[in-house]
Amino acid sequence: MKLDKSYSVLIVGLGLIGGSYAKGLKKEGHTVFGIDSDPETVSYALSEGIIDKGVCTPEPEMISRADLIVIALYPHLLVDWVLDNKSSFKKGAVITDVTGVKSDMVHRIQANLGRDNEFIAAHPMAGREVYGIKNSDEKIFLGANFIIVPTDENTFDAIEIIKGLANTLGFARISSMPPRAHDEMIGFVSQLTHCIAICLMTCSKSEHLVDYTGDSFRDLTRIARINEKMWSELFLLNKDALLLQMKKFIDEFSEFYDILERGDCKAMKEKMILSAKRRALFDKKPEKEGI
Amino acid sequence: MKLDKSYSVLIVGLGLIGGSYAKGLKKEGHTVFGIDSDPETVSYALSEGIIDKGVCTPEPEMISRADLIVIALYPHLLVDWVLDNKSSFKKGAVITDVTGVKSDMVHRIQANLGRDNEFIAAHPMAGREVYGIKNSDEKIFLGANFIIVPTDENTFDAIEIIKGLANTLGFARISSMPPRAHDEMIGFVSQLTHCIAICLMTCSKSEHLVDYTGDSFRDLTRIARINEKMWSELFLLNKDALLLQMKKFIDEFSEFYDILERGDCKAMKEKMILSAKRRALFDKKPEKEGI
Repeated sequence: MKLDKSYSVLIVGLGLIGGSYAKGLKKEGHTVFGIDSDPETVSYALSEGIIDKGVCTPEPEMISRADLIVIALYPHLLVDWVLDNKSSFKKGAVITDVTGVKSDMVHRIQANLGRDNEFIAAHPMAGREVYGIKNSDEKIFLGANFIIVPTDENTFDAIEIIKGLANTLGFARISSMPPRAHDEMIGFVSQLTHCIAICLMTCSKSEHLVDYTGDSFRDLTRIARINEKMWSELFLLNKDALLLQMKKFIDEFSEFYDILERGDCKAMKEKMILSAKRRALFDKKPEKEGI
Repeated sequence: MKLDKSYSVLIVGLGLIGGSYAKGLKKEGHTVFGIDSDPETVSYALSEGIIDKGVCTPEPEMISRADLIVIALYPHLLVDWVLDNKSSFKKGAVITDVTGVKSDMVHRIQANLGRDNEFIAAHPMAGREVYGIKNSDEKIFLGANFIIVPTDENTFDAIEIIKGLANTLGFARISSMPPRAHDEMIGFVSQLTHCIAICLMTCSKSEHLVDYTGDSFRDLTRIARINEKMWSELFLLNKDALLLQMKKFIDEFSEFYDILERGDCKAMKEKMILSAKRRALFDKKPEKEGI
């Protein structure tokens, strides 16, 4: 089920993800408000019809009209924004986010938000190697995974609203996971992969290799074109889980090194067969949707 | 310049790459002969019009009609095939290959081939995660890199013929590199990336993560669906160069681990900025073609 058409949505932070949310919601007929500290971003969003109304500093009257508030700010700004503006929230408005790491932040917000509002965390697993509203595109959500990250504090109604939001934006699979499990999983599928891509670009001078590169190297390093401000924050917020995953990867990679060094063809093939078998699962599109 | 239309080409080994060569050459009007030890492959290639004539065991008469012979066999079969069949080669016929590792093999063939023929190594940097003639597709070469790997033994004429072959097949960039430099480069851009993808699939149980996976993980592991027979051979053939690249990657990755562990945001951002800057180069399409 999609989000109730009558819902007005406020997007806080009109970057790549915030802008893409706004575009997707506008296309589905929602009234969309936007707040972004950058005046150029706001005027661009208004002139392109991405939002109905926009301001650069939080305006209580606008905030109070939103039934759903999506915070799409840098992680370190999120908690403060919610707590600084909570007195302006409409009674019953649901607050959500788009942040890649959850554990600490979700509990801090939920412990400090009044009874009239509910914060429910969500993680749209979509992105691009470019940023800013000019690169926003609601089509990045098609076929992508959306994870709702509820705690014991969350109600069934709020979960349904966020599922509606994900359906409205066109996500292919909506699932649910508690904060700690989410962050552990993200430490593996997202953060470890970014660390690997970065190190593949920094471990050797490679500028002269452009003419000799096959698809493998391009694929493994696509995400190495990274926004250092956002990702350094995300890595530090999830430090323990990420270090654990990095350690497991180093151990496995070192084992593969030893296998090759001693020329153990049988052991090498076993690793490759396991790898190929597991990877084949990720090509399948699960038929069941939703949680 | 394309390959002379009058050239008859013999493809030895009608797998993914051999089959794709055959399709591309047939479409350009060449007479194409094929040899493959699997009778089903040969009859499929004939029935689909991928080759004009095909056999399962080398037939001297057919071999002697080819102006250009492309060996697309598993690496360990390559040298023996050339030396076993050299007495059947047409005088002046050029022999080439498609193998991913060159150093040892090129010199062994060139030292043992008679004066009437020339072997010139080449590496089409294209592939898929599936194999066999049924998955062959001449379009995999469009936009891809082609590397000619000549030695001091090779003539200008033979290099021109192989450039013509690459142009006929539609490769975007043709470059040239001596065998040792080629293998070192391949150890980095191709083999190291495959090792990383394999270890990312084998370091943790990930079967349950299909619903939570973003594009990053899928991209980094696409090549983890690997043909263990071919790649274990290629890794062992290039063991020293690959071990060196793996060591450099482990050192860099361990350094990144230490940076994160001590929470050094500045050093982390510096790595990310270097990574993003270098990776940006790989998005550009060089305008100049050819060598």
